[in-house]
Amino acid sequence: MAELSELFAPERIAVVGATDREGSVGRAIMENLIDSYVGAVVPVNPSREAVFDRTAYDGVAETDADLAVVVVPPDIAVEAVREAGEAGIKSVVVITAGFGETGSEGAAREQELRAVAESYDIDLVGPNSLGIMSTPVGMNASFGPEDAQSGRMSFMSQSGAFITAVLDWANEQGIGFKDVVSLGNKAVLDESDFVESWGEDPDTDVVIGYLEGIDDGQQFIRTAREVTQETPIVLVKSGRTDAGAQAASSHTGTIAGSDEAYEAGLDQAGVIRAESVQELFDAARVLESQPVPERDGVAVITNAGGPGVMTTDAIGDSRLSMASFTDETLDAFREALPAGGNVYNPVDVVGDADNERFRDAIDVALADENVGSVIVLACPTAVLDYEALAEETVALQAHHGKPVAACFMGGGRVDAAARTLAEAGIPNYFDPARAVGGLDALSQFRDISTREYREPTEFDVDRDRAREILSAVEDREDTRLGVEAMELLDAYGIETPQGGIVDAPADALEIAEDIDGDVVMKIVSPDILHKSDIGGVKVGVSHENVYDAYEDLVSRARNYQPDATIIGVQVQEMVDLDAGVETIVGVNRDPQFGPLLLFGLGGIFVETLEDTTFRVAPVSRPEAAAMTDEIDAAPLLRGARGRDPVDVEGVVETIQRLSQLVTDFPAILELDINPLVAGPDGVSAVDVRLTVDPDRL
Amino acid sequence: MAELSELFAPERIAVVGATDREGSVGRAIMENLIDSYVGAVVPVNPSREAVFDRTAYDGVAETDADLAVVVVPPDIAVEAVREAGEAGIKSVVVITAGFGETGSEGAAREQELRAVAESYDIDLVGPNSLGIMSTPVGMNASFGPEDAQSGRMSFMSQSGAFITAVLDWANEQGIGFKDVVSLGNKAVLDESDFVESWGEDPDTDVVIGYLEGIDDGQQFIRTAREVTQETPIVLVKSGRTDAGAQAASSHTGTIAGSDEAYEAGLDQAGVIRAESVQELFDAARVLESQPVPERDGVAVITNAGGPGVMTTDAIGDSRLSMASFTDETLDAFREALPAGGNVYNPVDVVGDADNERFRDAIDVALADENVGSVIVLACPTAVLDYEALAEETVALQAHHGKPVAACFMGGGRVDAAARTLAEAGIPNYFDPARAVGGLDALSQFRDISTREYREPTEFDVDRDRAREILSAVEDREDTRLGVEAMELLDAYGIETPQGGIVDAPADALEIAEDIDGDVVMKIVSPDILHKSDIGGVKVGVSHENVYDAYEDLVSRARNYQPDATIIGVQVQEMVDLDAGVETIVGVNRDPQFGPLLLFGLGGIFVETLEDTTFRVAPVSRPEAAAMTDEIDAAPLLRGARGRDPVDVEGVVETIQRLSQLVTDFPAILELDINPLVAGPDGVSAVDVRLTVDPDRL
Repeated sequence: MAELSELFAPERIAVVGATDREGSVGRAIMENLIDSYVGAVVPVNPSREAVFDRTAYDGVAETDADLAVVVVPPDIAVEAVREAGEAGIKSVVVITAGFGETGSEGAAREQELRAVAESYDIDLVGPNSLGIMSTPVGMNASFGPEDAQSGRMSFMSQSGAFITAVLDWANEQGIGFKDVVSLGNKAVLDESDFVESWGEDPDTDVVIGYLEGIDDGQQFIRTAREVTQETPIVLVKSGRTDAGAQAASSHTGTIAGSDEAYEAGLDQAGVIRAESVQELFDAARVLESQPVPERDGVAVITNAGGPGVMTTDAIGDSRLSMASFTDETLDAFREALPAGGNVYNPVDVVGDADNERFRDAIDVALADENVGSVIVLACPTAVLDYEALAEETVALQAHHGKPVAACFMGGGRVDAAARTLAEAGIPNYFDPARAVGGLDALSQFRDISTREYREPTEFDVDRDRAREILSAVEDREDTRLGVEAMELLDAYGIETPQGGIVDAPADALEIAEDIDGDVVMKIVSPDILHKSDIGGVKVGVSHENVYDAYEDLVSRARNYQPDATIIGVQVQEMVDLDAGVETIVGVNRDPQFGPLLLFGLGGIFVETLEDTTFRVAPVSRPEAAAMTDEIDAAPLLRGARGRDPVDVEGVVETIQRLSQLVTDFPAILELDINPLVAGPDGVSAVDVRLTVDPDRL
Repeated sequence: MAELSELFAPERIAVVGATDREGSVGRAIMENLIDSYVGAVVPVNPSREAVFDRTAYDGVAETDADLAVVVVPPDIAVEAVREAGEAGIKSVVVITAGFGETGSEGAAREQELRAVAESYDIDLVGPNSLGIMSTPVGMNASFGPEDAQSGRMSFMSQSGAFITAVLDWANEQGIGFKDVVSLGNKAVLDESDFVESWGEDPDTDVVIGYLEGIDDGQQFIRTAREVTQETPIVLVKSGRTDAGAQAASSHTGTIAGSDEAYEAGLDQAGVIRAESVQELFDAARVLESQPVPERDGVAVITNAGGPGVMTTDAIGDSRLSMASFTDETLDAFREALPAGGNVYNPVDVVGDADNERFRDAIDVALADENVGSVIVLACPTAVLDYEALAEETVALQAHHGKPVAACFMGGGRVDAAARTLAEAGIPNYFDPARAVGGLDALSQFRDISTREYREPTEFDVDRDRAREILSAVEDREDTRLGVEAMELLDAYGIETPQGGIVDAPADALEIAEDIDGDVVMKIVSPDILHKSDIGGVKVGVSHENVYDAYEDLVSRARNYQPDATIIGVQVQEMVDLDAGVETIVGVNRDPQFGPLLLFGLGGIFVETLEDTTFRVAPVSRPEAAAMTDEIDAAPLLRGARGRDPVDVEGVVETIQRLSQLVTDFPAILELDINPLVAGPDGVSAVDVRLTVDPDRL
């Protein structure tokens, strides 16, 4: 996708369907454009001579425009876009609704619209869009009631109404934008396109958005992780909860992917995910205006102990920490503060502190090499001048180049100070938790922007053998595979217990005799899913009992279901569960993000404790390693409670190899290795289940 | 403690240390009182004739006041309080600082102050307090810069500066108070006293507070659970996090109890705990003005799909749920809404909805018996009049008597509507999550106010036998007990495995022969804490091997530590861990709340997964039962994954019996039963460790 700079900086805009009829969308757009757009605005309306005193054209082809905004009814909108394409117009915004959001006829129309746009290589926004804005050229090509103020955030939203509400609020708060896009149905241009374009836009410092879905998750990850090396992206992705996902799905008509996939995918994309409107703008404002902190230690400078404790709690809840001061700093505080003050963090300059004492303390804290950022936390007192403190805070922030957050508590007496702070890009909050939230976002972005994305490791595997094993489902109705697919894991170098599947008792004995000690024997049949329930698993079978055990397993299976397909019996070495930790490694396919890897605590705990973590495949080694750190039970892997640490590296490699397997074979719809027993001396995939789509082989 | 109505409604206030010296605390208090207090204010200052044109008295005894506010220096403050007591003054506010917060001399002075207050039965606030306020009598007996506006919340704070900040902010927001108290050092009156008093105050509808610690947790629970049957209490208790607790401890000089104890204790007290200032006031405002919902189903009525999804997410995050409408309601919506609308929840009245359509939809939703509350969620459009919608919303709320939350999104164009809503007690938020948060607090309070608190069950136990066993530590240096105290559990009816402790191999065999099957044998020695490490545990010992095993265990212990005290060997039946779930039941003593019970997933998972829940003892049966529901692993107890359910009732009884044990014996400082194996047919306390304070026996 090319840059969209032409979309946002046209020289001549044609409004197809322009009118001056009261209450019409065509009129609203004309008015918004005439109001402040620096270029030419030309109405297209064959049934009028003129609109707002401008000569109306009969068709878009005659306008010589480089952007067409289409507001004509849906049945002629596609034709209008085609005409624009014929005339060489490369940017089109389709305001018109009545496409994919309205049923099958609309969906067919949207399909046609997409085909037309693609054949003419048109950058098309919408349909069903409120429109777009770009403040540098004064363009408000929308039918919303508010203009955006000038700023350095660019904003995309899948809800037009939300844009309207945000602009009304942002204008009051003094928050400005560079570009604003109502994404509409995303027939052509989607979130990835705008993220890419704004990543290259020198006038966009922060990308923010409200999304209900991401169309192509893999594309989005590729694009966004590049952009976020420089430019922060903060998104609300709604439909987080089950109820919300259902609401989103009925609102947009798309199948909702799992929130686990979004959570993993957005993180891998380097996106800062906000859970509410307040979090979105709190994060975006500081990302726009403040430097990132070099370290996570925060110094709190306050004239009130209680609020200092509240702020410390908020820091404890965040990814930040309370900075430990250098001896030099402590000495400086000891000198500057009266008895009753606290030189340790949170620094209490005491209620009788005047501006000079407060200022000096902020200065000392900002100069400390252990301090990444400072929170100035003030309560109103008779001796403190809030406005002067605001000016001093702004000056000290600029001087030291470290981020500063402000929490001047109070109401009316804070207003002037808050304005001074806001003008310098330091939002002021009554609630310390929100001030901390801003610094938290800065810290998060520092880590994102310094991430090194590695290529996934390519292991030497036997792909042909894997394909052969997967092909077993081609002749079957049932597309599930069980332990008979253990060799699939072998083919991709995933460790499995010694053993094999046989269809005669003598062969079973032969395998058992190669194994040191007792064995486990299991019936193998696609018709018997819950082997344990029918006594289809025998643990601790000694060599002399293998023969009998074989016969018994087969007869149990026959009794249970006389016509069951019996593949044979699996004979496997005993894996010592006590010395290891049962984990699960799995994958399923998300409609938006594709293969979603799972790692977690296995065995009976999988469903109950849900101690799991997810990544969109393929994953690199560091990503796989991070998964083994993220579960709550991670310390168990590393040898908690006096136990030996397990072979974590083996787990990490297994995750990567599974990632390669499911990337190589889109036919694998689901696969679970449960348990993957991780012991001190290695890992072992004891059981596997998968579902294969034979059509994708 | 008597009611504090006299403290808050005095007729004549003496200011001891009154002055008109610029910048002094004595002047600030005089000014605040003269400003608006309806009663008489008399200055006490022997070195002045008059203060602010009022005759100054030489001593408080002459003033005939019923409230004395003391601002004289610390060295004469105690004497002033004594004089007030002598004169029969029962209410005193000590503003003066320099007491417990300043080291040992101050602590001694505070001790004296407390003794004086107690001997004269004085209700004393402070010392080190900003003062108190009560709006019905226009009393601002504080040195803060702001008066409180009149309202129906009463507010206590352990931070005076926080009161100053809150009042400045609240006055701007139109939030009023009945009483305000700066608790100071809480030498006499503490949070429990004010909670009790406000519980009986017909003019206080909501109690809110900022606390850094609770002095007597058990007292607070008793008081607050009574009050919260009628009056909601919302508190910020700071020091939630490790960092915050450290900061609080250095700020107030008190030993911080664990946040687990506060979390459990505040919940048992019926307190709604807010985590931030914003949460505190968001909850308090709706609790003051809105009815509680009869059910948790929420209807969202909106003219914008996207924000509807965000709101649904916020509901999914809360204790509330999306209401399912009755058929009648769905029919009514179908009739009222145009194509493109959504009759299911969230109800989309569509962007072109005028006030009438919006109003009708709110009305229909409020009338639905499945709907407990409604969120009116509006984005600005050309056809919607926000002010009229606000008035309609207020009228509909009043008509239906169900709680309504408002989320009219936008900035300037919302202001007038927001004022209309706020005047009717409906706060308006830009962020739907905050509107949901308010309804969530209402639902929480409904459950609190309808709780039935039961008395703890009294089991028939052998208390004398228990005391005897605990007395074992009296002759020892080491106050820890291990399996030798299994009989303590027996004495309180807690199930233990069959077996006993013996000091001869023949006795071991005798016990083993009474047990069906193999046994477990463990060395018993106070000097050997980690028995497994020295091979001091033998599992699966058959009867014929008991003799040898005994000798081996003792010789291993001797080898490990020749002078170890060897109590003997424990012989115990084997408990089948596989069929059961290993849990932990324990107790430790919190400095504020006393015995704190713990229940959780046991075995190797205790420390790693921290899947635990806490209660302050003693607990009733429903409280013990709730503990078994609260851990993440609860479904495992109830038979997840095809396993048999375990004897949950046995676990519940064990928790109650342990509660009774530690309540009966304050000498038990810590006790852990780990594991308590919960199997399908019963529970079994396999291992126990405790620490006993012989001085408290």
